[in-house]
Parts: sequence; structure tokens; C-alpha cells
Amino acid sequence: MAGKVKVGIFGASGYTGAELLRLLVPHPNVELKLLTADRKAGQKMADVFPQFAGLDLPVLTKIDEADLNSVDALFTALPHGTTQTVIADAFKKNPKLKIIDLSADFRLTDPKAYATWYGHEHQALDLQKEAVYGLTEHYRDAVKKTKLVANPGCHSTTAILPVVPLLKTGVIDPDTIVIDSKTGMSGAGRAAKEEMLFSEVSEGIHAYGVGKHRHTSELDQEYGKAAGREVLAMFTPVLAPMNRGIYATIYVRTKGDASPGDLHAALAAAYKNEPFVQVLPFGQVPQSRHVRGSNNCQIGVVADRVHNRAIVISTTDNLVKGASGQAVQNFNLVFGLPETAGLQSPAMFP
Amino acid sequence: MAGKVKVGIFGASGYTGAELLRLLVPHPNVELKLLTADRKAGQKMADVFPQFAGLDLPVLTKIDEADLNSVDALFTALPHGTTQTVIADAFKKNPKLKIIDLSADFRLTDPKAYATWYGHEHQALDLQKEAVYGLTEHYRDAVKKTKLVANPGCHSTTAILPVVPLLKTGVIDPDTIVIDSKTGMSGAGRAAKEEMLFSEVSEGIHAYGVGKHRHTSELDQEYGKAAGREVLAMFTPVLAPMNRGIYATIYVRTKGDASPGDLHAALAAAYKNEPFVQVLPFGQVPQSRHVRGSNNCQIGVVADRVHNRAIVISTTDNLVKGASGQAVQNFNLVFGLPETAGLQSPAMFP
Amino acid sequence: MAGKVKVGIFGASGYTGAELLRLLVPHPNVELKLLTADRKAGQKMADVFPQFAGLDLPVLTKIDEADLNSVDALFTALPHGTTQTVIADAFKKNPKLKIIDLSADFRLTDPKAYATWYGHEHQALDLQKEAVYGLTEHYRDAVKKTKLVANPGCHSTTAILPVVPLLKTGVIDPDTIVIDSKTGMSGAGRAAKEEMLFSEVSEGIHAYGVGKHRHTSELDQEYGKAAGREVLAMFTPVLAPMNRGIYATIYVRTKGDASPGDLHAALAAAYKNEPFVQVLPFGQVPQSRHVRGSNNCQIGVVADRVHNRAIVISTTDNLVKGASGQAVQNFNLVFGLPETAGLQSPAMFP
Amino acid sequence: MAGKVKVGIFGASGYTGAELLRLLVPHPNVELKLLTADRKAGQKMADVFPQFAGLDLPVLTKIDEADLNSVDALFTALPHGTTQTVIADAFKKNPKLKIIDLSADFRLTDPKAYATWYGHEHQALDLQKEAVYGLTEHYRDAVKKTKLVANPGCHSTTAILPVVPLLKTGVIDPDTIVIDSKTGMSGAGRAAKEEMLFSEVSEGIHAYGVGKHRHTSELDQEYGKAAGREVLAMFTPVLAPMNRGIYATIYVRTKGDASPGDLHAALAAAYKNEPFVQVLPFGQVPQSRHVRGSNNCQIGVVADRVHNRAIVISTTDNLVKGASGQAVQNFNLVFGLPETAGLQSPAMFP
Repeated sequence: MAGKVKVGIFGASGYTGAELLRLLVPHPNVELKLLTADRKAGQKMADVFPQFAGLDLPVLTKIDEADLNSVDALFTALPHGTTQTVIADAFKKNPKLKIIDLSADFRLTDPKAYATWYGHEHQALDLQKEAVYGLTEHYRDAVKKTKLVANPGCHSTTAILPVVPLLKTGVIDPDTIVIDSKTGMSGAGRAAKEEMLFSEVSEGIHAYGVGKHRHTSELDQEYGKAAGREVLAMFTPVLAPMNRGIYATIYVRTKGDASPGDLHAALAAAYKNEPFVQVLPFGQVPQSRHVRGSNNCQIGVVADRVHNRAIVISTTDNLVKGASGQAVQNFNLVFGLPETAGLQSPAMFP
Repeated sequence: MAGKVKVGIFGASGYTGAELLRLLVPHPNVELKLLTADRKAGQKMADVFPQFAGLDLPVLTKIDEADLNSVDALFTALPHGTTQTVIADAFKKNPKLKIIDLSADFRLTDPKAYATWYGHEHQALDLQKEAVYGLTEHYRDAVKKTKLVANPGCHSTTAILPVVPLLKTGVIDPDTIVIDSKTGMSGAGRAAKEEMLFSEVSEGIHAYGVGKHRHTSELDQEYGKAAGREVLAMFTPVLAPMNRGIYATIYVRTKGDASPGDLHAALAAAYKNEPFVQVLPFGQVPQSRHVRGSNNCQIGVVADRVHNRAIVISTTDNLVKGASGQAVQNFNLVFGLPETAGLQSPAMFP
Repeated sequence: MAGKVKVGIFGASGYTGAELLRLLVPHPNVELKLLTADRKAGQKMADVFPQFAGLDLPVLTKIDEADLNSVDALFTALPHGTTQTVIADAFKKNPKLKIIDLSADFRLTDPKAYATWYGHEHQALDLQKEAVYGLTEHYRDAVKKTKLVANPGCHSTTAILPVVPLLKTGVIDPDTIVIDSKTGMSGAGRAAKEEMLFSEVSEGIHAYGVGKHRHTSELDQEYGKAAGREVLAMFTPVLAPMNRGIYATIYVRTKGDASPGDLHAALAAAYKNEPFVQVLPFGQVPQSRHVRGSNNCQIGVVADRVHNRAIVISTTDNLVKGASGQAVQNFNLVFGLPETAGLQSPAMFP
Repeated sequence: MAGKVKVGIFGASGYTGAELLRLLVPHPNVELKLLTADRKAGQKMADVFPQFAGLDLPVLTKIDEADLNSVDALFTALPHGTTQTVIADAFKKNPKLKIIDLSADFRLTDPKAYATWYGHEHQALDLQKEAVYGLTEHYRDAVKKTKLVANPGCHSTTAILPVVPLLKTGVIDPDTIVIDSKTGMSGAGRAAKEEMLFSEVSEGIHAYGVGKHRHTSELDQEYGKAAGREVLAMFTPVLAPMNRGIYATIYVRTKGDASPGDLHAALAAAYKNEPFVQVLPFGQVPQSRHVRGSNNCQIGVVADRVHNRAIVISTTDNLVKGASGQAVQNFNLVFGLPETAGLQSPAMFP
């Protein structure tokens, strides 16, 4: 591909928007043309996020005033529910656009599931049919051809990557999967809420959305596809006092005479050529800090003391592989760029 | 009881030792007579823990040089494995002693289980028979009469309190219990280890002892007793970047036609008169920070989206109800003091 | 004093209000009668602060509906600026009240200084004349006799205690004092503000109110009184990623032939009988975590490499000695109780 | 420059070594040939730092066994004191080497100053004469020509950049400079020490090395050169509960009729073309988290309430601009590469 891709970001004043910028600024094939933030329109990015001081970036504008014909690619990092109409409008203004959507709006292929989990009818069903679920490792070919990528959720990415190969190869019981998914605070966004104040969430831990978190619907969809039957895992998100990281402890029972070692083998085989998924040696336990800031997912498999049980652990950075990093990975595919372009930095530890 | 109980602490230079002091210094019925710390013998507590500057406390001495006839009560906060012989010696020197042991040495009543989990034969089997497992709410009468309390582990206390009433009343399936137990760093002690450095454990989270943590043996023992049959739960401890707190997310399936609401009712009934266990309203999720520094255990029950599944959440401060606070609670019972003496401070939040 | 003092708290839903409760619940001479929180009226404290679950406390009410004749003592933990009229009204309703005010409204004795720093004329000048600045160690006798205590600010308490004795004894140059005062996040209160979100303030540090923080006015007043002349120190507050703690690094130059050791001697002499101020051995550096949760102020003095310069370091818990603890200390004095009642817990570390 | 520079790292198992790798792995002009770690020789980097799992890196070897003729450039990230002989040996084995030394061994040009601050005679005085102090913005031309760069300390870099232009232009009084320099924990290294355990250093703050920290000697040297006379600033490092970041609050008095605005102007002029130094608008306060992970130094100037005083604030990431990032910046210059190569990622926030 000659030249640079002209890129816009809708929703640049949130954490996933800022993370897109962090990754796209040094990206060798990107030219940033357009940044929106409706409530901060007219400001510079450095006013909103001082880490960008000294960089020459487009001034923030409103979505309505954005010139969509100035860009080839659009990342949308906007709230769930309203993004679908924004994207429908964007395609009307520039039908050649390729859009990577970081909201949940196009992730569920079943309109009924969408209505159930999100509480209203979908407003752009025709687009939903074209959208590709952007879990790159499992939908790479479809991503390359689509104009609309539905980038997966952070809990979803972290819980789907280690389980789908186990369901596909039939080595685990689909009916007893339990997922305890710890997350850092940045996933809650930048809106001022009492319950996200430092003093409210540091030096302690707690579950939220227990029994009903919306990312569960993505697990249902992808686990079900992998198993060829309904799979309803137990899933609880837990907020840990850290900025970044998803850390899913996944409890499974083996099926037939499969051993925990067979689970490890299935995962190692599934991801052996993947640049962003590392299956650690059998028995080794990953840590979320070792993927911080990188686009990696690290997976470990440990045998339980009871022979037919195992603990599978998966970790990502919620803002990178769980959001903006995977979005850039998908962007690279859509535009025929090397899949790892702009994503080669190892994790930042400590 | 007239007068004050004369108290000694073996192992005052560790975190649980210091926490005992924090609780015992303002305790109205305690006179501190003896503090040991072999490697810091001759130093003042304020040299080892500057928070005690300004207090008039016994100078640290060696265990061998401690005058055990100067005390009525002894708290032992020493490493697992060697404590049993130290305690056997202590009783020889002063047979009237009452000992609250914070190590794991006397927690398991089955010598075979002890040998399996701790890797060597028990060295004081006769004492082990007299020891009472100090999960106060469930062994109150026995604690009052014993001379040796085996204070439970922090993960164990937090996971046993919410599950035993459910097994006793038969409302959950004993075969599918999964416990994901998050803990703060202070539980790892004060020994200088690379893996416990701030830069190694902040801003991230990870499991440890996966599939084989020793506190599992206490769960097996107490769950088994409650259910009247073998119960082998899945249990994984997870280290969270905070000083204090145990936070157990417990996944259960109901039995027969019991509903999640029945689980809540069983717990509310079991603990309705307990000063240190609060069963929150059905559906409310506890947070570890709301028990920080207190002797409380807060328990929540939430229904899963699938009707016969529930999430039970239990939280304590690992150094208080999970160690030194429960030890003081047991001490109060052994000496006929009000059970809440010295333990009435609400949690410190924020 | 026979019986218990009947106590009310105006503003129980903020952090200093909750901290008052933490200290007053186990206080042996206190009966809690009245808790207000205008925007949470009708709720239980446990709804607002779950750490109080299980306690039998008055339901939250509005200030307007509070029965002020039901209490002997009132703690006001309300915003600056409006508290003065609330207190004037309270005295009208119950002239026998004793009030401990945790706001800044009555701290400055000079009405002009108040108007300058707070931007409006004082609304209760007659009360201001009766108010006593509640830096207990320096105004103990006046506190005992007053009906209105102006409890000092957290930065102020921490910076005034170590400097006033140095100015009084004339061992330091009043014109070159520099104070760099680190604080935890809880001092910023519980209002939902973007800049206080966990993700905005963890894993980093920054100054605020540079060159103009209002606590400076308290330093000016007390330093000036101690020195008998104008003293205008440089003072910068810095927000550190922790919940609690003030940590002031104070840079001074000695006067005449005074040595750093003389500074230490002056402080040790000034505070040798104080229960809540510990002057550490010369050269020892305090840490904020060693006063966490306690009413202590720990002070260290270290010589600089240049002979006539020294670094004086002072630390408190901003919510205890810097707010609610000192308020209870003053309350004890006002009601003739032992000064340390309810305040004897050592710091909580770790 | 054709081809890639062949690079080795001595001391790859420490935090600065790992940070070098983080920056050099995606560096477009680098080929990593050699990694040493004497105590971990034979291991893979991923065993020592799991964030490098999945990368193809040289196995760790011992310094003695390293083939120094396989590399063009050597980064030394070894302890102070012994590095000087290691480097002298390295030049003997390969005289064409270019070395970037991250230790303190070659930073002080005056052998007497070195002996005073480090407690022993320098062992490689001839090399010391050739070494260039690698504060890139001030020694760029010399760095380009040298074979041995003495990379500055983290506190030093952060405190020298904002002060040297003020001394050179004569707008501040050299005799009243006070520097309070907060740092994250990673600067203390990876050695297992009790005082660096999470529970010892989280949730609190404290000064260390008060009155005598060795980085002071670099300030003396560079401030003295800039002022043309002796300058002995007061300097105190303070350990804050965060992984990364140096945050220096610098208190100065203006000279003659210079105003705080003049100070800002002097800094803005000095750094207007620098890619890694951002002087913020007058009055704006930087935050350490906004340079985290980047090679940036952000500087703010704020007027005090007294007209001839100002607060200058400077912040860097101690592992990047304060160590490995500046080392890569110097490496780029030494090898004629673009100065920003490999260093273009914006800070990682949150």
C-alpha cells in the first residue's frame, strides 16, 4: 500500500480515544486528520490530555462538523446505543469509509439478543449484518474484507480467546464454565462518578454487574458458535485497584478423558503462529502487569488438585488488546497493512 | 473477670504480630508483658514498627529467654511447621497458659491431612487433639473451654463463613463450588522477596498457589463436616494490589428447588445475632474496603441470570477477622471477656 | 463527668463526617443522637457508607429538621463559606451548645485576612471573636473554655506543629521557610470530579493550588504569632496517590549559631509530654503510613550537608489529626474528658 | 546510515535493562545481539521478565563470556562503583565500541567530587576524561562525537533541565534553590529489600537520603557550570507510592527585577525546538503521569503569592528520560540516527 491512510477518531476525549492516539501517533502508515469530542470542541488534545503536549494534532471538532470525506478510516469510540446511528450517518456521507467501531453496537449478530441485553431495538439492522466481530485471531479473513468492524469488549476478548479453542476441540464441559474477570479502573471511562473516585476504589476490591454484565452476551454468542450448542457460562467482573488490565480466572472441567495437559495443547496449537497471543508453558501463571500497554494476550493453564479440573488464566490490557490495540490490529488488516504495524512495543513493566 | 489479663506475643515483628499489638494496646482488659522477635531481640517495637513510637511497650526478646510464667495468655504469630514444638515447649514451662495460635499448625484435625498438605508428620499430635478450630461463630462453646485455639487462615475464614450454613441447610450442590479469593499483599508477610516488591505487584493482578493452596485443606475439613460428606471445592487465591482484604467470589448451584433467595435467607438466619458478620440485603455486593481494619465479615448473595445459580461474595480484612482480630475475639472468649472487647472500631474507609 | 455526652454531626455523608463516626462509635463517653446529610436525608448511614452496616445509628436527617436541643455537642463537617451561618443559627436554637467546626470558617482571626483568602466578608464576626483555633497542643487552655472550636486544616496542622516552636525559640530564619506538603486523596472530599477519578490520580503525582492554597493563611497567622512579626513561607501542596496522609518536607535555615541539633532539641522539648506528637530521634525520617488512622503527628529533623540548613519533616493522617481526630481531641477537652479518650488506637500499618 | 546497529546490554535483568529492551525491540535501526545478567545466565529474558514472552531475543549470558566484537554499541546498566572497570575492560576487548553507561561512574568530571560522594577513588580516570555527560539537550554536540556517554541520573535530569537555563540567564538567585523531588519505586531497583515491599511503601510517602543523596553531586556540577560559581541547592528525594515518575517541585527567588514570567520565557526559549522537553503555558502545573512511559520532560512555571518568588515544576519518567530513554536518545546521536528514533510513543495515560 502506497502512502498513508487518512484517519479520523470520533470520541477522542475518552480513554479509548486517547489510547488510539497513543498507538496511531507513531504508526508508520497513518496520517491523523480528524478528531472529535463534542463537549470539548475547539480545544486542543493537549488541553484534554496533557500527554499530547508538543504534538501537532488536529483541533477537536464536533461530529456534526467533521469532514468525513477527508478520511479513509474512522475509529468510533462513542457510547453504546447511539453509535449505530452515528455510523449509519457516516456511511451516508462517505460510502467508501472503513469504520472500526469500539462500542458494543454491532457486536451481537442476533437482533433479539441485542434488544434483550441493551434494552432497545437495534437502529441499523442492515449495517449489523455487514459488521464483522473483530476478534482478530478468529475472524481474520472476514475482517480483511469488511467495511465495519465491531471491535469486541475487553472482558469478552480476554475470556473468549482462551475458551473458544477448548470448546471447538471438545476438551471441556460447556456446562460448568465459571469466569471471574478482574479489571482495572480505566474500563469505567472518564465520566465523573462518585463510585470511581480514587478514595472509593483504591485499597480494596469489589464485584460489579454481578449476574448480568453485558459482555456476557458476547461470551454466549462466541462460546455457542464454538460449541455448536448453547453455552451459558457464569461470569462475574471484579474491579481491582489498578489502571489497566483484565485478568480472567476461568474454571473448567475436562470432558471425556481429556487432561489439563490436553487443554494446554489445544491452546498452544491454536495460537502457535499468533503474534499477540502467548500461551505460557503448562503450569505457568500469567500476570496482568506483563501485558500492560501491549496488544498481547497471555494465557496459562494449570491443573487443579482434582484430576479432571483445570484453571485457565487469560490476561490482556483492557485499553489495548481489549479495545484500541485490537482496533488498530483490525485497521491494519482492513487496509492491507502488516498486522503488527504500530503494535510492536513490548509491555511496559514495571 | 477482675483485673487485666497478662499477655505475651511470640513473633511481634511480623504483620500479624503488629496487628495484634494495634488491637491489644487500646484493649481495656489487657496488660502487655512480653514481646518476642528472635532476629530483632533487644530492639524496641518502635524501631521495628515506627507506628508504635511514643508507647511504653516491652522490649523485644528471644523466645528462649521469654518468662512464660509472667503471662496468662500467649499469642503465637510464628511460621507454619515450627510453631507446634514452640507451643509444646511453652505449655511445659507454664501449663496454665492459654494459647491462641495464628499459624496453621493445629488447624487440621486429621493427622494424615496435615502430613499431606504440609509435607511432614505433625510433631505434637496430643496437643492437636485438644486444639479447637477458632472460627468463632461456629465453635464458640468449644473455644471458651480450650487452652489452645487454632486460629483459622484468612482465605479459609472468608470462604468458610458464607458456605457452611449453605451446606448445613442443604440448599447448594456440594460438587460445583468454585471460589475465587482475592487477597491483599500483607498476607504474604514481611520477608524480603523479589516477587513482593512494590514494582512487582502494583498496577496488576495475578493468581498464585493455583490448584494447591494450603488453605484449601481447611475448606475441605469444614465443608466436609458441614455437608456430612466429602466436598472438594475449586479454590484459587489471587493477589490484588492493595495492602489488606480478602474478597471471595463464590460460585454455587442451588440444590433441589432452592432459590438464590433461599441461600440468602439461610445466611441471614445463621448470622442474625453475630456482632462481626453482616449479611447484606439480597442482591447487594460487598466491597473489601468497607471491612478494612475491622473484625467484620460482610456477605452478599446475588442471583445469576440462570435461575439455579448464585454468586455468594464474602469479604474480610486478612489481618483482622482473617488473623489477629479473630485471635482477639477468641482470646476474649477464652478469658470470659465480652466477645467484642477491643474490636469495636468500625472499618477505616477511606 | 458523669454520663455520656450527647453528640450530633452536621455533614455525616462526607469523609470527615464518616471519620468522626469511626472515632465516636467506640468512644466510651459519647452517645450519638443526630446525623445530618441534606442530600441523603432519610437514608441510613450504612446506605451511604457500608462500613457502618450492623450498627444502630440515627437515620440521616436534614439540618433544618435537626433537633438541636437533643445534643450537647455538635461537630460541623460542612463546606467552607456557608458553615458560619449554619453555626450562628445553631447557637440561636440551643445557646448551650458546644460546637467543633471542621470547616475553615472560624480559623482566621483577622476579618481582612478572611475576606482576602475566601473572597467574601465574614457573616458571623461576633462568633469569630469567640472561636478558638483548635491546634490543641498550642491552645489547650483556651479550647477547654470555649463554646466554638475552629478545627485547623490538615496541611496547616502538619506544617504548624513542627515550625511554631522553632520560631518561638528563634532558632530558624523566618524568611526562608519552604514547605512542600504531600497529601492523600481523601482530603479532596467525596464530590464526583473528573480530576479525582482513580485513573486520573493513581500512578502519578502533581502539585495543586500552587502559590495560593488557602491553608497558607493559617500558616501566616500562626507563624506570625510565633515569630512576633510577619512570616510568609513558601507553601505548595502536592497530591500523592494514596488515600490518607499529609507529609510536609520543610526546608529551613538556622539563625545565629543555632545548629540542626538545636532545632531538634527545641521540638523535643516542646512536645515531650504530648500524647499525640512524637519527635523522632535526630536524623530519623518519618513516614506518613506510620501515622495512618491514628491521631499522631510524627516529626523528624535532619541536618543538610550545608551546616546551617536543616530539613524538618512532619506527618499526620489528614482525616485524623488533620481533621476528625483533632476534633475529637478538642471535644474531649471542651467536655472535661480525658484528652485521649477514643483516640488511643495506634496507626494501622500496613 | 546503512544497516542496523548491533547492540548489547550489560545488566538486562534489572529494571533499566528491561526498559532498554522495551525501547530497543521496536527500534527501527537496532539489532539486539547480546544480553547479560550474571546471576541469571542461561535463562531466557521471558523467564526473568515475562513481558518479553514470544520475542526472539538472545539468551542471557555472563559478562565474562560476552563476545564484545559482535556489537557496535553497548549499554551498561550495572551497579555504581564496579561499572568503571567493566567498561575499561570492554574497551580493551573492542576499542571501536561506543558505550552508553547508565551507572553513575562517569558522571562527575572532578575526581575529588567523585571520591567524596562515592567513597572511593575512581578506577578509570583516563576514561572519565573522555566521557560526556549525557544530558542530551545541553551536550548534544559532544555526545555525537564521544565513545562513552555518562547517562545522567533520574533526579538529576529532572532537576537540571529546568534550572540550568535560569542560572545561565541570571534570572534566579543561585543561593536559595530548594528542590523537593518525588520519585516512583522503580528507581530503587529489583533487589529484594524489606523496605521496598508493597506493604511497606504503598499507601504512604516518605523522604530518603535526606541531606546527602548522591544525585546532589550532579546538580552541584551542572548548576555550578551554568552559574559560573558554586551553587549548593537543597535537595530532598521523596518516595511516592507509584511505579514510575520523577516530580521535582523547585522553589526559587528571582534576581534583580526578573519576574516569574521572565523565568518562564527563559525556559520556553531554551527548549523551543526540543522534541522531548515541553515547557507548558505559564501557570500550568504538570503531572508525572502525563510523561509516563515517554521520553518527555514537562516543565511548568508558577508565580508565588510573593512577587519575587516562583515555583518551577519538572517531571520525567525515571526509567525513560531519567534512564533508558535518554540512553537511547544519546545512542541515536552517537550513531548518527534520527534523535527521536524509537522514542516517538506518547506517554501512556491512564
